[in-house]
Amino acid sequence: MAYWNVDKIKYVGTGDKKSGLGFQYYNPDEVIGGKKMRDWLRFAVAYWHTFDQRLVDPFGDGTAIRPYDKYTDPMDQALAKVDAAFEFYDKLGVDFLCFHDRDLAPEGDTLRETNKNLDKIVDKIVAYQKTSGMKVLWNTSNLFTNPRFVAGAGTSPYADIYAYSAAQLKHSLEIGKRVGSENYVFWGGREGYESLWNTDMKREQEHAAKLFHMAKDYAKEIGFDAQMLLEPKPKEPTTHQYDFDAATTIAFMKEYGLDKDFKLNLEGNHANLAGHTYQHEIRVAREAGLLGSLDANQGDKLIGWDIDEYPSNLYETTAAMTEVVENGSIGPRGGLNFDAKPRRSSFEPEDLFYGHIVGMDSFAAGLRIALAMKADGYLDNLVKNRYSSFDTGIGADIESGKATMAELENYSLDKTQAQLRAATHSDHLEQIKDTINHYIVQTLK
Amino acid sequence: MAYWNVDKIKYVGTGDKKSGLGFQYYNPDEVIGGKKMRDWLRFAVAYWHTFDQRLVDPFGDGTAIRPYDKYTDPMDQALAKVDAAFEFYDKLGVDFLCFHDRDLAPEGDTLRETNKNLDKIVDKIVAYQKTSGMKVLWNTSNLFTNPRFVAGAGTSPYADIYAYSAAQLKHSLEIGKRVGSENYVFWGGREGYESLWNTDMKREQEHAAKLFHMAKDYAKEIGFDAQMLLEPKPKEPTTHQYDFDAATTIAFMKEYGLDKDFKLNLEGNHANLAGHTYQHEIRVAREAGLLGSLDANQGDKLIGWDIDEYPSNLYETTAAMTEVVENGSIGPRGGLNFDAKPRRSSFEPEDLFYGHIVGMDSFAAGLRIALAMKADGYLDNLVKNRYSSFDTGIGADIESGKATMAELENYSLDKTQAQLRAATHSDHLEQIKDTINHYIVQTLK
Amino acid sequence: MAYWNVDKIKYVGTGDKKSGLGFQYYNPDEVIGGKKMRDWLRFAVAYWHTFDQRLVDPFGDGTAIRPYDKYTDPMDQALAKVDAAFEFYDKLGVDFLCFHDRDLAPEGDTLRETNKNLDKIVDKIVAYQKTSGMKVLWNTSNLFTNPRFVAGAGTSPYADIYAYSAAQLKHSLEIGKRVGSENYVFWGGREGYESLWNTDMKREQEHAAKLFHMAKDYAKEIGFDAQMLLEPKPKEPTTHQYDFDAATTIAFMKEYGLDKDFKLNLEGNHANLAGHTYQHEIRVAREAGLLGSLDANQGDKLIGWDIDEYPSNLYETTAAMTEVVENGSIGPRGGLNFDAKPRRSSFEPEDLFYGHIVGMDSFAAGLRIALAMKADGYLDNLVKNRYSSFDTGIGADIESGKATMAELENYSLDKTQAQLRAATHSDHLEQIKDTINHYIVQTLK
Amino acid sequence: MAYWNVDKIKYVGTGDKKSGLGFQYYNPDEVIGGKKMRDWLRFAVAYWHTFDQRLVDPFGDGTAIRPYDKYTDPMDQALAKVDAAFEFYDKLGVDFLCFHDRDLAPEGDTLRETNKNLDKIVDKIVAYQKTSGMKVLWNTSNLFTNPRFVAGAGTSPYADIYAYSAAQLKHSLEIGKRVGSENYVFWGGREGYESLWNTDMKREQEHAAKLFHMAKDYAKEIGFDAQMLLEPKPKEPTTHQYDFDAATTIAFMKEYGLDKDFKLNLEGNHANLAGHTYQHEIRVAREAGLLGSLDANQGDKLIGWDIDEYPSNLYETTAAMTEVVENGSIGPRGGLNFDAKPRRSSFEPEDLFYGHIVGMDSFAAGLRIALAMKADGYLDNLVKNRYSSFDTGIGADIESGKATMAELENYSLDKTQAQLRAATHSDHLEQIKDTINHYIVQTLK
Ligand SMILES: [Co+2]
Ligand SMILES: [Co+2]
Ligand SMILES: [Co+2]
Ligand SMILES: [Co+2]
Ligand SMILES: [Co+2]
Ligand SMILES: [Co+2]
Ligand SMILES: [Co+2]
Ligand SMILES: [Co+2]
Repeated sequence: MAYWNVDKIKYVGTGDKKSGLGFQYYNPDEVIGGKKMRDWLRFAVAYWHTFDQRLVDPFGDGTAIRPYDKYTDPMDQALAKVDAAFEFYDKLGVDFLCFHDRDLAPEGDTLRETNKNLDKIVDKIVAYQKTSGMKVLWNTSNLFTNPRFVAGAGTSPYADIYAYSAAQLKHSLEIGKRVGSENYVFWGGREGYESLWNTDMKREQEHAAKLFHMAKDYAKEIGFDAQMLLEPKPKEPTTHQYDFDAATTIAFMKEYGLDKDFKLNLEGNHANLAGHTYQHEIRVAREAGLLGSLDANQGDKLIGWDIDEYPSNLYETTAAMTEVVENGSIGPRGGLNFDAKPRRSSFEPEDLFYGHIVGMDSFAAGLRIALAMKADGYLDNLVKNRYSSFDTGIGADIESGKATMAELENYSLDKTQAQLRAATHSDHLEQIKDTINHYIVQTLK
Repeated sequence: MAYWNVDKIKYVGTGDKKSGLGFQYYNPDEVIGGKKMRDWLRFAVAYWHTFDQRLVDPFGDGTAIRPYDKYTDPMDQALAKVDAAFEFYDKLGVDFLCFHDRDLAPEGDTLRETNKNLDKIVDKIVAYQKTSGMKVLWNTSNLFTNPRFVAGAGTSPYADIYAYSAAQLKHSLEIGKRVGSENYVFWGGREGYESLWNTDMKREQEHAAKLFHMAKDYAKEIGFDAQMLLEPKPKEPTTHQYDFDAATTIAFMKEYGLDKDFKLNLEGNHANLAGHTYQHEIRVAREAGLLGSLDANQGDKLIGWDIDEYPSNLYETTAAMTEVVENGSIGPRGGLNFDAKPRRSSFEPEDLFYGHIVGMDSFAAGLRIALAMKADGYLDNLVKNRYSSFDTGIGADIESGKATMAELENYSLDKTQAQLRAATHSDHLEQIKDTINHYIVQTLK
Repeated sequence: MAYWNVDKIKYVGTGDKKSGLGFQYYNPDEVIGGKKMRDWLRFAVAYWHTFDQRLVDPFGDGTAIRPYDKYTDPMDQALAKVDAAFEFYDKLGVDFLCFHDRDLAPEGDTLRETNKNLDKIVDKIVAYQKTSGMKVLWNTSNLFTNPRFVAGAGTSPYADIYAYSAAQLKHSLEIGKRVGSENYVFWGGREGYESLWNTDMKREQEHAAKLFHMAKDYAKEIGFDAQMLLEPKPKEPTTHQYDFDAATTIAFMKEYGLDKDFKLNLEGNHANLAGHTYQHEIRVAREAGLLGSLDANQGDKLIGWDIDEYPSNLYETTAAMTEVVENGSIGPRGGLNFDAKPRRSSFEPEDLFYGHIVGMDSFAAGLRIALAMKADGYLDNLVKNRYSSFDTGIGADIESGKATMAELENYSLDKTQAQLRAATHSDHLEQIKDTINHYIVQTLK
Repeated sequence: MAYWNVDKIKYVGTGDKKSGLGFQYYNPDEVIGGKKMRDWLRFAVAYWHTFDQRLVDPFGDGTAIRPYDKYTDPMDQALAKVDAAFEFYDKLGVDFLCFHDRDLAPEGDTLRETNKNLDKIVDKIVAYQKTSGMKVLWNTSNLFTNPRFVAGAGTSPYADIYAYSAAQLKHSLEIGKRVGSENYVFWGGREGYESLWNTDMKREQEHAAKLFHMAKDYAKEIGFDAQMLLEPKPKEPTTHQYDFDAATTIAFMKEYGLDKDFKLNLEGNHANLAGHTYQHEIRVAREAGLLGSLDANQGDKLIGWDIDEYPSNLYETTAAMTEVVENGSIGPRGGLNFDAKPRRSSFEPEDLFYGHIVGMDSFAAGLRIALAMKADGYLDNLVKNRYSSFDTGIGADIESGKATMAELENYSLDKTQAQLRAATHSDHLEQIKDTINHYIVQTLK
């Protein structure tokens, strides 16, 4: 218990302007909207960004100062990281963790050796789970960092790499079962193309679909009952990634019969890179019944790459949580995983706490605001009224399928321009934006 | 025959560096790749941009000088435009035209009056078709310009507007039948949202799907056998348009059972606004078996709105035509419609000819280059070799579904890092790009 | 007093979540930070967007419903608009207006006729100013809408157009004197290029600079003592506009000796289109001593064109007002002009009030928050501490110019990697972002 | 002579469509436009991307296979790289190299140790220069990779880091003198900000300017007579880099009195990231008399980060070389440095040759095309005619400053709308684009 030089982060309530090592909005056991905040939000810490990330960028070496830097042997460090991680979870007060297989332990020269390293670390994690009650929101397999994945894993044009990917994935699913993961995520970092000139997109997508089917079937076979999730991202590192955004991924899932067994894990920064808001992506998934889980972070819309910033924008967390409230939950077994890292200039250990605090408090705030609007029926009424002409009369006939084109022509043929204009109404969007500002301040004060 | 002060545009072959009123690459009756160029390309002139467009922009009034500007009565001008249009088609040497209903004739106060205006113009078009042999590549209905469509047509929250849209569409389908359109296109200019706060996206999409079903069924009912097409565009004028890109539109079509009867009409500039290349969008549609037709234009990737520039970039036309050659045709009944307009500073009548010449020649050049690469098997061999490890052995077992995860693990467990790296090969993308430069020059010289 | 069917907008204070026809943060005569809010903010209503804007977009006709729509004669309507405008100012409670010459009155066939129309309207405005006390924050000349400006005004390649532009501008300066404008703004809508192939950029920029000199000299000659301002925007309608952003415009001003007499008018949406935040642009101008005035609006960073939305984002207004507070004022004679319009779907008259209310309240809120941070020294201390190593010792020697390269080499040559790392400190940016959230809520509650 | 398994790359002329290990357009000793091609183009190989770059990306380890990978001791490898580099230069047939100090040798724990490593490698380079005649186009100092530069070097808020930067730079200038660099480049990788909240932009810029002055003065002091160059880039790795683009950098240079001694080094990909074309940036610098040298690469305008692709787009190389031809040279002592790397999937040694071949041939092609247009006076005449109304009459009076505003008013007051429209002319941009296509094909065939 000497890794992190901070006390347990507690709920302190509002008042202080200066951000400190306490939560102002996240009060885990407070019941709002019929559930404890911890059950609405199901926060998870991401192993890679929190414990492995050295804060490198394409033009600079890592700046991070971490309490286990003194360990030089990779396995020693990997083991120390587990201790540090579970102390971190405890001090931060989260209930879930997430990890890639390769976050945990170094690779050996063969998969057999790699798996051996990995199993040793997983043993230690399982032991900690027993004493701490920590759960795994999801685990996944890193099929993009090693040079062998230069042209993808499930979409690699090289059969040996595909075979290796399936083998690596198999063990990762077995680990998922051991740690009791609620979900299993696939982010297709290199499942896309660098150039269309030499790419057989269809063959690659068929291969990927086959791998997803194999994974799902194998999970069932071994009794690993996690919810399977795909995570869209449009590009980076590839020129184009097949799981471009929620809608594209849904099209792929439908084409290959995956939409019954897979759902989506959505990330804010990825949404922006695809030209969408985070809310849009969540809405698309929600309405398709495919919202699985959320990667909580934010981008900078003036920056064209993935910055994985801790979420702090209350407009965005409010919008995201509005969708979650409407959905009843983040997803059947979903949560909010902080796929986020400190800025390269926030290189001290305590910045990992400040980052999670702003992230957790911003989403807790978003939840409070979304529930306040829900309680007042504010947005519900806006929407209900706006579409009310479809609830009766010709509108109802249209919705029921009763109205034919000929009938609609007959209904419309002699309506004047003025009559038609009168059927439309102002959306008063400026008033809506002002009202949302008021909800934020009045709810959080 | 006094509208356009130019002679018929003829094929003159290469040689002149200065662009003149002749084609250097488009030789309509030349047979290449087993078909006449005119049958590969099926060029169409867009009524709206060519005859109606005044070259306005958000900060400026129209600059266009057109030969029918002297007519001040809207119907007189509409009638004169038909004469001018058919003279233009004849002089340019195209076989197809495209139009929206509202391109042709002014609206009256009621749909009944509007339809009357419209029918009079259509009568004249039909008469011209008989004497000229001109065909209609597609027609469509303008459901976005009039203020009544402020919140959409098929996705309008106002039942009376939806009803009117269906009524307007009904007549547009009837016109399609009269003029013998090969396709019928839907571009959902306002079928999207300004804000998610007040939008019931699902209800709107269900309404839109219903309208598409109605349209398809009514077309069948009246014996109008056009191919139905949806045209994606991500945004503008809306914040988000439902038919964002090819993949999103395919997801929508599959969700609502439209993928059997509808295909896609794809535009280059729209592709760019969605973050894609034109080639990408065509590939997505082609591989899904949903390529219907093409709107031939180009964007400026540094500009964030739709500029609908005449295509001139030989890299882009080559890439597009490579997909078309692979597909065997642009689509079952598709063609290349110039959804393109002169720059606002190219305001003279002859600029309409120069614009179409650079567009037609650039696509004719792209066809020639694509066929040259096909004849040499250049790209085909690249792709065949790249994926050859899936043609036999473990790769074939993977594709056939014979290989289980356990077998793949067994196959991979003791492979060394070096062995796996050796299974991957350089893509030599720099050499490919250089080769494409050579194909362009050597084919077109 | 029958144009706008609303009562005077009053300060009502916080409490209501639903936005109504009252201010929650803008209390004009409240003294904060040593000045009345009205004197800090100097809000202006833009004639073009508020009274002329029909809410058109590139794909749709105007939707706006305005109380003077019944007037069909252009001059009658122009006269009625003045009545409506001054009633609007009064009801909204602003002290300033802004206008282009062509906002006020229709063009005649010649400049002489146009000026006559214009003078008649200006007479009426001047009369209203006397009774109401309304001031003009700035006026300007519309040198971009008419087709004659197709290739620019001050940068037109056509001498007759340049001459005309100077003539139009001359009268506009005279009007500025009559109405007592505090500033005179130049937005170079078409002062840029569509293509570099046919553009002599240097010659065009020299022409523009000459026109700015002429204008400044003529203003002096007639005793019109307004502050001259240039307004940057990167593109739209042009491919590239010469006044791309603050830094580019400053480079131009310095090159042509304009930096003594001109300052900058900066707009939020324009900043985003240039890849910058609004705060960045204001900072650049402020530190160069060239901050003149502000166009208050916001963009949508996922949208690639100018949407001129009413400002509602409290992060952005806080950042902008932080710069203003640091500067002591918006500029020597500057103010906040709402270069903003309702969404096309907010087409009713009262939306003009809601739009201004959210804009005014958001900037008033930003002012309150910025002053709260100032009062606490929050940001000042952050910055002071961060650079403190330059206040003494080697840092002070560097700043004073005393330290030579050789001395700095000597100072550094044997410092270890660890010693150098120890000289750097975490920026704790996550904590800063969290603190700003708290300032927003705690100040506005 | 065993590092690279290829023969000398020779000029083979056009004909082959498949790109091979020969130049089709670059014929170094061919005289065109009055100079040898090698003297027009002055190609340089970048040490970092060619010999150091491991082809990593943010989600993947390096894939590069390099002939000196067998050396595990850093200094052994650094020495072997020099042998490999000079063999590469010879086989490729370039006359220039470029490097950062840290490209050459590993850092020690102190600057003293680092310099010792570095000097040893520079000794070897100098020896090779004597036997080979290879020249250094420019050298520079890497002040961004090491964690100590987390907040910049010349703009670091930490005086010790600033001091160290000056010290490192001092030695780098001394090396420049030893190797006889034609230019010395500053790319301010981290000279910008992550957040404005804690940044004193003005103080940072003053510090940077001081460092540039020191560097220039020290170079003079030691008799190192290189042309000093600043290289703009808008962002990445920082949120905002002070040298955003050419115009911004010029503003900075003018503000701090650097415009007499410094010029610009411009990069294609950086131009795009700033929202500009490469041609635009070169034009801006050229017209300001500040064009120094060029970093030859290209971006993908649909990708939001720096990809440093080898140039292959003939439109872009033609546009760039058109500016160079107009300028008479790339710059007083400039050249074309390939700041470019193979795609991560082009990981074999020969891809380094293919990359440079497509780059060199594309720029050689651009030169040929630009000279062909120049010889025909094609663009010159376009421009001359477009502005001819300023050569005589009222236009000449405007340019000479003779025309007053009053005279211009008098000249314009009674001109009709039609007369003014008649003073404008179509730009025929579509014809221009078509003509450029013809120049490309007809020149290169
Ligand atoms: Co993620
Ligand atoms: Co991410
Ligand atoms: Co289109
Ligand atoms: Co378009
Ligand atoms: Co503005
Ligand atoms: Co604007
Ligand atoms: Co560079
Ligand atoms: Co670069």
